[in-house]
Amino acid sequence: MSISDFPADSVGLVTPKVLHNEQPFELACGRRLPGFELVYETYGELNAKRSNAILVCHALSGHHHAAGYHSKDDRKPGWWDSCIGPGKPLDTNKFFIVSCNNLGGCHGSTGPRSINPDSGEQWGADFPPLRARDWVHSQAMLADHLQIDCWAAVIGGSLGGMQAMRWALEYPQRIRFCIVIAAALQLTAQNIAFNEAARRAIQSDPKFANGEYLKKGSHPSDGLSLARIIGHITYLSDIGMGQKFGRELRSGTFELGKDEEIEFQVESYLRHQGSVFAEGFDAHTYLLMGRALDYFDLAREYNHDPVAAFSHALCDFLVVSFTSDWRFAPERSREIVEALLGARKNVSYAEIEAHEGHDAFLLPIPRYLDVLHAYMRRVQAYCEGLSQ
Amino acid sequence: MSISDFPADSVGLVTPKVLHNEQPFELACGRRLPGFELVYETYGELNAKRSNAILVCHALSGHHHAAGYHSKDDRKPGWWDSCIGPGKPLDTNKFFIVSCNNLGGCHGSTGPRSINPDSGEQWGADFPPLRARDWVHSQAMLADHLQIDCWAAVIGGSLGGMQAMRWALEYPQRIRFCIVIAAALQLTAQNIAFNEAARRAIQSDPKFANGEYLKKGSHPSDGLSLARIIGHITYLSDIGMGQKFGRELRSGTFELGKDEEIEFQVESYLRHQGSVFAEGFDAHTYLLMGRALDYFDLAREYNHDPVAAFSHALCDFLVVSFTSDWRFAPERSREIVEALLGARKNVSYAEIEAHEGHDAFLLPIPRYLDVLHAYMRRVQAYCEGLSQ
Repeated sequence: MSISDFPADSVGLVTPKVLHNEQPFELACGRRLPGFELVYETYGELNAKRSNAILVCHALSGHHHAAGYHSKDDRKPGWWDSCIGPGKPLDTNKFFIVSCNNLGGCHGSTGPRSINPDSGEQWGADFPPLRARDWVHSQAMLADHLQIDCWAAVIGGSLGGMQAMRWALEYPQRIRFCIVIAAALQLTAQNIAFNEAARRAIQSDPKFANGEYLKKGSHPSDGLSLARIIGHITYLSDIGMGQKFGRELRSGTFELGKDEEIEFQVESYLRHQGSVFAEGFDAHTYLLMGRALDYFDLAREYNHDPVAAFSHALCDFLVVSFTSDWRFAPERSREIVEALLGARKNVSYAEIEAHEGHDAFLLPIPRYLDVLHAYMRRVQAYCEGLSQ
Repeated sequence: MSISDFPADSVGLVTPKVLHNEQPFELACGRRLPGFELVYETYGELNAKRSNAILVCHALSGHHHAAGYHSKDDRKPGWWDSCIGPGKPLDTNKFFIVSCNNLGGCHGSTGPRSINPDSGEQWGADFPPLRARDWVHSQAMLADHLQIDCWAAVIGGSLGGMQAMRWALEYPQRIRFCIVIAAALQLTAQNIAFNEAARRAIQSDPKFANGEYLKKGSHPSDGLSLARIIGHITYLSDIGMGQKFGRELRSGTFELGKDEEIEFQVESYLRHQGSVFAEGFDAHTYLLMGRALDYFDLAREYNHDPVAAFSHALCDFLVVSFTSDWRFAPERSREIVEALLGARKNVSYAEIEAHEGHDAFLLPIPRYLDVLHAYMRRVQAYCEGLSQ
């Protein structure tokens, strides 16, 4: 295989690595994991001063495979390939980029499908609940392992943006720039309600078996699929769905006097998305990640005052939102910006005109990539300043 | 029992009546029902000229019981009691109000739980698909039965508003005022997507038994409950849910170091709403009503031109929307208004400031009731003109 098998601006073939931590790991819930494994990928080269490292944090259903290909037969690159690669905003000619699968995930890091060494069986429903801060702490251990004292930037969209903010509060000395995309200080009641609907979809699937599906060898694919469909609708926008699907039919007719099964394109699309997702995802992980989202509340331990919370941060911030995102609306981002201004932090804010809803943060929208590019030049100037 | 058992502005005790139609009834799908029963209620008195009759059309999960009480032990009055009664906008001292359970319903009218005379068994999944026009045609037979040549007004919210519009096109001579609340010319792709998620919730419940649940004596209550939860979230608004529930907990704590089950108030509320709904509703009816919503497209047979469609109408229109309604947003109502203006119809439009989302159309919001009150005085003036 040669590099030429891949697009010129791709990081090409990548191989995941694993951090093995054998020390007990204390969790926010008070329980502890007896060690863990964290699967991660890196793109680009760490410079001599180890000053050009960027941590990418993933969202609800993401994982460590953010860019490039695992084999030349891969049909699709990593989930943020539009953003990571030579010449792209997260430019692998300039930065060393790290992306891990969060604890509790189902793509290689320790999670509900891992063996609980105390029982010798899969954790399953007994896997401890996690908070964003647990992920941040485990990511800090990955930084230690990679001998990165301070990230040039921590970046993430949605739940990933929440981790980036938590980084700024938990390890203010270890993050120079914090990039928060399509995120919020906390979920609204409506957000929680949609997550609850998704949970019920999973939990009421008989194949979920009251959480014992791993033991029983079953897989709650109907429930996972419906959970994904509910989520997916909320990640898109009304106007974006209208443009993409409208009221186009996949089959049947509305002609009077004809009794035919009628299926709209949007239904068929969602069914397909749900099925593909359900095949590759774990129900416990979905529940755990959703709960971490619900529970996230940046300022909870700061007397519910986000200004007080951010006053602990030392880094600069870029906050990005998308006009049609109603899951984490621009208003939620403006709350972040206002709190940062209140705490006298350097903050840049971009509200990107986009019809793609919450999903926009994953897409190659030119104005969005331009904003990231410009900001990353600032990050690069900092790295070079340190490197000289 | 005396009338004093009920509030002074209540229509008091009401008894449903039934229209028995024994003639075959042709449906839009080309199939026919071998007759049907339509359960309905009336409030107020028909005047001598039979000119003061108002038809109330119900929404997805509604029925004939729009106002008053069925017994003195009833805890709740009919679903639109805030609007119907002596001195209320639909003033029973002035109007004769008719409200029926639509065909396909599960509250007494012929529907999937009725016996199919051809088979001697319950219709179940074999009940024919219905369109809004089928309801309108059956309501016209009810008007015939009541000897009402022309409704002073046909009024409805949501799917009810769609029926009111269809009345204006199907029977232009039989409707003088058309009141369309929180409706749309057609559903958007996002609307259809949410309905599809609700359908999947029902259909993937094993107790749905591939539609054979009546035969098997089971009831897909988990599926119905989840369908209702999904719908209910979309009937409320983000801001309204925030005001009502915020991030309040019902149980558990976020305190660090405590591993407790955490439940938000909004989750508990939705679970309760879902369960109550699932108890009293039929899954086939839910699917059928949702499909009628999806299929509704006012202008389909008018070359997709709503101006051309409305040019067939002869009545005046009132269109009402609510600012926080994102299921049938004010923009959808403005499309109706623009088409009506294009067709040179008399139309009044009110966009009501409200935080209650789509559900606002069912609630006693003062400004909303004021608008209805004012418009109904106009309807009344027409009735009195005819009566003199």
